[in-house]
Parts: sequence; structure tokens; C-alpha cells
Amino acid sequence: MPSSQAATRRGRPGYDQQTVLNIAVDVFNRHGYEATSMGVLAENLGISKSAIYHHVPSKGDLLRLALDHALGGLEAVLTHADATDGKADQRLEYVLRGTIAVLTERLPFVTLLLRLRGNTEVEREALERRRAFDHQVAALVEAARSEGSVRKDIDPRTTTRLLFGTINSLVEWYKPGGPLTPEKLADDVIAMVFEGLHHHA
Amino acid sequence: MPSSQAATRRGRPGYDQQTVLNIAVDVFNRHGYEATSMGVLAENLGISKSAIYHHVPSKGDLLRLALDHALGGLEAVLTHADATDGKADQRLEYVLRGTIAVLTERLPFVTLLLRLRGNTEVEREALERRRAFDHQVAALVEAARSEGSVRKDIDPRTTTRLLFGTINSLVEWYKPGGPLTPEKLADDVIAMVFEGLHHHA
Repeated sequence: MPSSQAATRRGRPGYDQQTVLNIAVDVFNRHGYEATSMGVLAENLGISKSAIYHHVPSKGDLLRLALDHALGGLEAVLTHADATDGKADQRLEYVLRGTIAVLTERLPFVTLLLRLRGNTEVEREALERRRAFDHQVAALVEAARSEGSVRKDIDPRTTTRLLFGTINSLVEWYKPGGPLTPEKLADDVIAMVFEGLHHHA
Repeated sequence: MPSSQAATRRGRPGYDQQTVLNIAVDVFNRHGYEATSMGVLAENLGISKSAIYHHVPSKGDLLRLALDHALGGLEAVLTHADATDGKADQRLEYVLRGTIAVLTERLPFVTLLLRLRGNTEVEREALERRRAFDHQVAALVEAARSEGSVRKDIDPRTTTRLLFGTINSLVEWYKPGGPLTPEKLADDVIAMVFEGLHHHA
């Protein structure tokens, strides 16, 4: 990805690329990507409006890097051996736990990804990658259902949407660094969606 | 609520108030409430920009009416006898089913409510009512946990957030009028969150 390579070499002295990206993603999430001007980005980076083009890549490049950080993390979950080998329901559990881990570690990046509207080419490419990820998880749900480990009275498309709905909504309330660790959060989500909230004595 | 009363008496000849409201909510959801001008509303209602103030109440009044339609539906669920009498886990199930019913029946209105940022007084009042609703559901979760019908290894605040996350995310994908009826959707959500997806032979 030549534009990402170029972007990595740039950045203000004193700011590394990841810091620029963290600040940009925070601004995108607060104001919306469309509504964020290079001027607003410059202000948040503490550099002048006229200097920003020397210090940061284009808005589109920042978005591309940010979305790649989210999507790259999610895609890596699917290629891990625990996602590809073994019983489908264990692979599904591994993928859901991995998705929650990426979501909590890269929270602002995943938040940005989930709020995309698809108005630009960069956004459309990211949505395409997100759809491909979703399809692979849907295939795992299907496989777990076929092997008999996941209940059959719910349509697998509904099951997949409920799972993503539950997990994606974590970005709305999860606060990293608080008393609820990412690991306990993953345990709780897995307990609810696979075993249910009812206590059976 | 005097402003709502005033609004009810207004409206373009040929449009009843509910139609104006339906169109306005659709426009708010597509463009965002902040970004929607009276001019854009006029265009979508098929009336001239100069005539809109004679035909529709203010943008704020439309928002207030729309949010009241969503919140009124949700609040009515909590005052039903099935929500107030009986075992806590059955009351909780009734409230979750009722929430899903309101969400699917009044989908664009609940969508608008869930996307609020709280930038105006009308929005802040609505968020206050939403928080009161959430607190009552949280109290039901606590009660179900105390009576031993809901698992205790998950913090009740986490349980409540996971339940709302799962249900609120339905607005992102549920399509009314499709093969998945609101009743079956409610059955599916209740099955997943209370009994879990795992199939136990």
C-alpha cells in the first residue's frame, strides 16, 4: 500500500505517525469524518492550518490507515489456527473472543469503522473488507449449526446479526482501563450468547 | 405540553400531522437532526421553503413529538401489569419483548432516539426519559438476579448493557415487513439472551 508507506514516513517532528493517527481518529469520531476539515485536524494537532499539509498525509490517507488498523486486527483473528481448525463452535467462540479483544484494544478505530457511511472510495473499500469478515463469521455460525452445537430454531442470518449486534454495541459503552477487563468482558459476552442469562440450579 | 398541542392542530392541508412527522423523522435519520434545515424539510414535504413555517411546527417541535412517540411507547411497557406483577425474570422478559415490539413498530422513531447527541434542551429531556427507562430495566435485572433466576457471575450493570446493546442494535438491521416477524424476532432474542445459542442435546 504505497500511500500508507508514504504516510508512515511523514508526520510532525515530535509526533510519530501513530500519535497523529490516534488524534485524527478521535477527531473523526467526535465530529464525523465528513465534517472534519484539515483546519480542525490542524487545530487538534496543535499545528497551523497552513502547515498541516507538510505534517500529515491527506484526510483520506489518515482514514485509510485508521480503518486498516481496525480491519487488519479483525482479519488476523480469522487466520489464526484456532479460527481455522477444530470444532466449529470452538472456532466461533475463538473468533468472537478475538473480535472483542480487537474492539477493546483498538476501540476508537473500530468505532470509526462501525460508523462508516460509505461516501468515499476509502470508506467503500473498508466496508467491503468488513462485509468479507462478517461473511466468514456467518459461515462459522452455519458450520456450528450444521454440526449441531448451535440451536437450529433461530435462522443463522438472525443468529449472526444478533451476535454482531451484541458485540458491536460494546463500542457504545465499554470504557478501557475500568474495572471490567477485556478478558472478563469477553467471558461475559460468551456466557450470555452461548449459555444464556438464566440461572439453572 | 402546549407546543405539542399547537403542533397537532397545524400541518399542510392534505398532510395529517402523523404524515408530516413520519417524513420529518425519515429526513432526520438520513441527514442527522442538526444538519437538517427547514429548507430540506420543506423540500421533502413538497412545499416551498417560504411556506414551511405556515405548514409545520418548528424543527424542535417535530423532534419533541417524534421522541415522545418513541419514549411514550417504551414507558407504556413498564406500566403494564405484566411488567409490575410476578416473578422478576418473567417481568424482565415481558419488558424486553415489549421493548422489541415498540422498536419494530416505531422503528424510525426509536432509531432517532438512539442516535441523539443531547445538543438541545429537547434532546436532553428525551435522554433523561431514556435514562429513567434504562434504570427501571436495570432494577428488574437486579431483582431477577436477587431472586436467583438470572446468573450471578456477570455484574448486573454489564448484564443490562449487554441486553440493551443486543436489543438496540436491532435498529441497524431489522427490516419491517420482511420474512422475520416482530414476534419471531422477539422469540429469537429472548432465546439467545436467556437460554443461549448452544444446543444441548
